[in-house]
Amino acid sequence: MEKKIRAAVVGYGNIGRYTVEALEAAPDFEVAGIVRRQGAANKPAELAAYEVVGDISELRNVDVAILATPTRKVEEYARQILAKGIYTVDSFDIHGQIVDLRRSLGEVAKAHGVAAIISAGWDPGSDSVVRVLLQAIAPKGVSYTNFGPGMSMGHTVAVKAIEGVKAALSMTIPTGQGIHRRMVYVEVEDGYEFDKVAADIKADAYFASDETHVIEVPCVDDVIDMGHGVNMVRKGVSGRTQNQLFEFNMKINNPALTGQVLVCAARAALKQRPGCYVLPEVPMLDLLPGDREENIRHLV
Amino acid sequence: MEKKIRAAVVGYGNIGRYTVEALEAAPDFEVAGIVRRQGAANKPAELAAYEVVGDISELRNVDVAILATPTRKVEEYARQILAKGIYTVDSFDIHGQIVDLRRSLGEVAKAHGVAAIISAGWDPGSDSVVRVLLQAIAPKGVSYTNFGPGMSMGHTVAVKAIEGVKAALSMTIPTGQGIHRRMVYVEVEDGYEFDKVAADIKADAYFASDETHVIEVPCVDDVIDMGHGVNMVRKGVSGRTQNQLFEFNMKINNPALTGQVLVCAARAALKQRPGCYVLPEVPMLDLLPGDREENIRHLV
Repeated sequence: MEKKIRAAVVGYGNIGRYTVEALEAAPDFEVAGIVRRQGAANKPAELAAYEVVGDISELRNVDVAILATPTRKVEEYARQILAKGIYTVDSFDIHGQIVDLRRSLGEVAKAHGVAAIISAGWDPGSDSVVRVLLQAIAPKGVSYTNFGPGMSMGHTVAVKAIEGVKAALSMTIPTGQGIHRRMVYVEVEDGYEFDKVAADIKADAYFASDETHVIEVPCVDDVIDMGHGVNMVRKGVSGRTQNQLFEFNMKINNPALTGQVLVCAARAALKQRPGCYVLPEVPMLDLLPGDREENIRHLV
Repeated sequence: MEKKIRAAVVGYGNIGRYTVEALEAAPDFEVAGIVRRQGAANKPAELAAYEVVGDISELRNVDVAILATPTRKVEEYARQILAKGIYTVDSFDIHGQIVDLRRSLGEVAKAHGVAAIISAGWDPGSDSVVRVLLQAIAPKGVSYTNFGPGMSMGHTVAVKAIEGVKAALSMTIPTGQGIHRRMVYVEVEDGYEFDKVAADIKADAYFASDETHVIEVPCVDDVIDMGHGVNMVRKGVSGRTQNQLFEFNMKINNPALTGQVLVCAARAALKQRPGCYVLPEVPMLDLLPGDREENIRHLV
């Protein structure tokens, strides 16, 4: 039996919780510990068996850190952790800033002889792999990625960060051709005005370019369901042959899929040369545990 | 402008023809020439601008050879060509023999400092990439790949190789859960008995494990349509979360997609270290022309 990969989970919100479950279900991992701001205080029951600390330096022999922090904290944490010679993976989800993050983490990773895989959730992440594949095999044409209906974790976290928001849920509704409506359900903090909060949400970079509706509800918790979906379509040209049709669909639990993709990416990170990668730069077979030839025999 | 990749196409049946079209449509390739048994004799009109030769050694500065030969000739040709220091790609499609081919070509490729990408059609090939991805992100569960209805190139070539077959078409019909019926349409050579030919087809390794019907027709050409389809489904578990649902569908011109995948693989082959790879061992972004960061910006 090979030595297991020791993974630390940094951040323990929804994605952190599901990441721990995915690590427990994986045959080749063990949980090195959980890192969160409050450390071991009010340690959740399901983490009883694990070290829960305030700083990753308190954990022993961490091979790879899985960042389950808010997206906007990823760069800061990843740079610190890579500089300790620990591999990192994250599900950074601001599409327009991925190239910059890759450069930033690439420098640190190379300087410390480790690798980072960034934006390794499902979009960006596994969807990106499919998008690149379809672009390659039908080079001319248009791809549309339609999301939902479902809860967007990234958008929900972005709403929660806005002043005056007590609780929030951002639902993504596909209206076709990659166009989406955002339905944002919020509880407002006492002393804040709903109209001001709603305007701040609509002005946020996550929402500014989409049709966004903000609705005040008495209890956000009552309307949360973490199911999500994707419908990706491409109609394109292979060589000179028109009308090549492709479609990729998912109906999934959102943080569960993100947690699983992060764990696969953590496994793959350890197989990459020093540097920073997005998921479509990583061979898909590196995501799997087990013997390479056996995997080829069963899956290729 | 970077120097273009010089690709030779070896074999000029259906896949060879569509491969030349895909090379012509690619911004970063030029056709180094076409290799076929009869050489320049009876050169087809659409190849007027190209060198058509009987042996790849007659072509200048070939970077990569795209093998569009029958699958059972792939190993022999690839070993010869790799030994000349030329990269190769193929769409070898006998799933049970891929691991052996990978070992065989891997040795020769490493010895001569080049790379081969094998089984780079659409199944095995692009479908394999999706299958591996879905296995990774929902590790427990079952994937079914349902083919067709459509013409199987590999099965059709296998039928044509059987003694007494004058012309053939093998159609793949999905009956669900990855089970298929094969409908084989044949013209029989004068002097051969249909029943004997039909029995030989059913006994061939390509057909032995499927429900196969062989039907004699006066003109195979009248029933050929090269459209094909795939419906791949996976219902699986991410971490401990059940009922994660995935589906990948295509409706495509079969040899056109194979030709395009081969051209993408040829581009990627030149970026790999010496050795032999299947498509899920190759980073998807290596399949694309153009600037890496631009591709990440638009597709990830």
